[in-house]
Amino acid sequence: MKAGIVTPGQKDSARLIEMDMPVISSGQALVRLLELGIDGTDIEINRGEYGETPPDKDFIILGHEAVGQIENPGTTELGKGDFVVPMVRRPDDCVNCQRGQLDMCLVGNYRECGIKGAHGFLREYLAEDVAFLVPVPKELRNIAVLTEPTSIATKGIEQAMEFHNRSANPIDIAVVLGAGPLGLLTTALLKLHDYNIYTLDVVPRSSVKAQLVESVGANYVDGNVSSVVSLADKIGNLDLIMEATGNSTVAFQAMSVLGINGVLCLMGVSTGQKPLEVNASCLNMQMVLGNKMVFGTVSSNRGHFERSVESLIHIEERWPGWLSRLITRRLTLDKFRDALDPAPDNIKTVIELT
Amino acid sequence: MKAGIVTPGQKDSARLIEMDMPVISSGQALVRLLELGIDGTDIEINRGEYGETPPDKDFIILGHEAVGQIENPGTTELGKGDFVVPMVRRPDDCVNCQRGQLDMCLVGNYRECGIKGAHGFLREYLAEDVAFLVPVPKELRNIAVLTEPTSIATKGIEQAMEFHNRSANPIDIAVVLGAGPLGLLTTALLKLHDYNIYTLDVVPRSSVKAQLVESVGANYVDGNVSSVVSLADKIGNLDLIMEATGNSTVAFQAMSVLGINGVLCLMGVSTGQKPLEVNASCLNMQMVLGNKMVFGTVSSNRGHFERSVESLIHIEERWPGWLSRLITRRLTLDKFRDALDPAPDNIKTVIELT
Repeated sequence: MKAGIVTPGQKDSARLIEMDMPVISSGQALVRLLELGIDGTDIEINRGEYGETPPDKDFIILGHEAVGQIENPGTTELGKGDFVVPMVRRPDDCVNCQRGQLDMCLVGNYRECGIKGAHGFLREYLAEDVAFLVPVPKELRNIAVLTEPTSIATKGIEQAMEFHNRSANPIDIAVVLGAGPLGLLTTALLKLHDYNIYTLDVVPRSSVKAQLVESVGANYVDGNVSSVVSLADKIGNLDLIMEATGNSTVAFQAMSVLGINGVLCLMGVSTGQKPLEVNASCLNMQMVLGNKMVFGTVSSNRGHFERSVESLIHIEERWPGWLSRLITRRLTLDKFRDALDPAPDNIKTVIELT
Repeated sequence: MKAGIVTPGQKDSARLIEMDMPVISSGQALVRLLELGIDGTDIEINRGEYGETPPDKDFIILGHEAVGQIENPGTTELGKGDFVVPMVRRPDDCVNCQRGQLDMCLVGNYRECGIKGAHGFLREYLAEDVAFLVPVPKELRNIAVLTEPTSIATKGIEQAMEFHNRSANPIDIAVVLGAGPLGLLTTALLKLHDYNIYTLDVVPRSSVKAQLVESVGANYVDGNVSSVVSLADKIGNLDLIMEATGNSTVAFQAMSVLGINGVLCLMGVSTGQKPLEVNASCLNMQMVLGNKMVFGTVSSNRGHFERSVESLIHIEERWPGWLSRLITRRLTLDKFRDALDPAPDNIKTVIELT
């Protein structure tokens, strides 16, 4: 079978190779992978900034956002032809991983398919334990590749809503920073709760991103970091801010404009940013006197994947066709290297694996 | 009756005056105040840095940590001789205040007795609505003056524990920053949960503060901000950090050493600190990849006061006499001005009002 691999630490090392077909063992199913989504982490890995090979290998198969179809269920309860999304993390021995909270791993020895210590899904076939395969209904076949990024947003939103519960006042205004795939999925998920949503990005109002924001009834705000500040003055108490740019300057600006009893959820990271001078005393005082909260969230567990599938169904029902509009570029497997060059106006690139 | 007042905005304006006895109206009880605790806010108000008079007054009666005894229950269900602690905040019209969550006020028009727009408790008598009087058992008579600061710590700990619940791993190690009254009460409250506790302050190990920390089975750490960093290396994953110094440099240091899935609770503020250069990108990344949380908390509501009374009973049972050792100075009402000069080695100054 064909597989797209990289040599971690080596810039632009992405290449296609021929590999042996995987063989299933007990408890595993053979999955024919259909589609793979490319995200910023894949691009960073191909830049040599990130990534770790599986033990005893000198390369790693890229890709961690996928959907596939059961080719051979083996001894599992899955059926041939069932659609599944593979999860990303694999557990270590810590108490959280052992209870299925792979996303809250305490010791950091987890593996992440396509990222850290385990092969990813940029390939034609996968032999996988049923514990890490999440069933998806066939109606979602063409958008289920968005399940993994949706699970990241789902975890963040679920926790933010729970934390905001310490206050009797309901969430009214929610702000999403960034209108990439994560920001757009976050916008739609929040809109399922009918909050007043403002999604910010630097692209113009005529862009597809802005149109997608407005299509679900959220407000698109075209601007930069200072727009967050002026936004807070205009629209009222910012109850919830979901940070999906990974820009730490934006994150700290968001901290300072967060509303009374507000919750700021940080979902993104990016490398190579400069130190920032902050008015620590002022921030500290604002957080204390305003009962404010900032939390980070990474990865997702099986529950988040399962609830994301439910949410994708609800989004598709409420705004038919919207999710497929997030996939702005489709490439065949032999062209996957093109997906690792960020293209302007592109939202989500998907590699067709069959 | 005698009352200790200040003119907000005017430095060292604290003085004793003679006032009319308060008269109770329907739903109110007349309270003979017994003891009043002085804290940093009182000192800041007397420095002219803080404080706001009640409407149509040019002074404010100081004091917000008190215990009293019912002199005349009026039409309330309280009994003559009952011991009570008056709450600090008075509600505005916002949804949170109206539901009793005065501590989560959304609009900021609340009043705070002795601090903002309402007279405090540094006086001999108080006419007060029963809704703001929390009964305390007579066994706590000599330590119930600590109920208000205990309620601040109670709110912080309750919320921190709830937020930490998003992770399956239990809280094992908790750090308390500062061994003033709030830090010490926080230490004892956390120790009721039998966590491994490390309480830091700058005073030597021979000090009363350090002895009080060790008396409840917590570990005293003598050091400065960098001790927080080295502590994390030595003892393991810092699951919970309670910041009780109000120093924003300490707060940001704490952020950077917080453990995986850790929760940092900011309970203190202080004025006049310098801007700080932080590695925002690094902090952002640590918070995201480590599922970390920072939240601020201010004030407390009736539930926190009531549960603090319960906790004070538990602390007194488990470490008899410990709470009274926090009160290191007692002054009569005519000497209350002395309490507004911070004294070295002093922990809590209490004014005897009768």
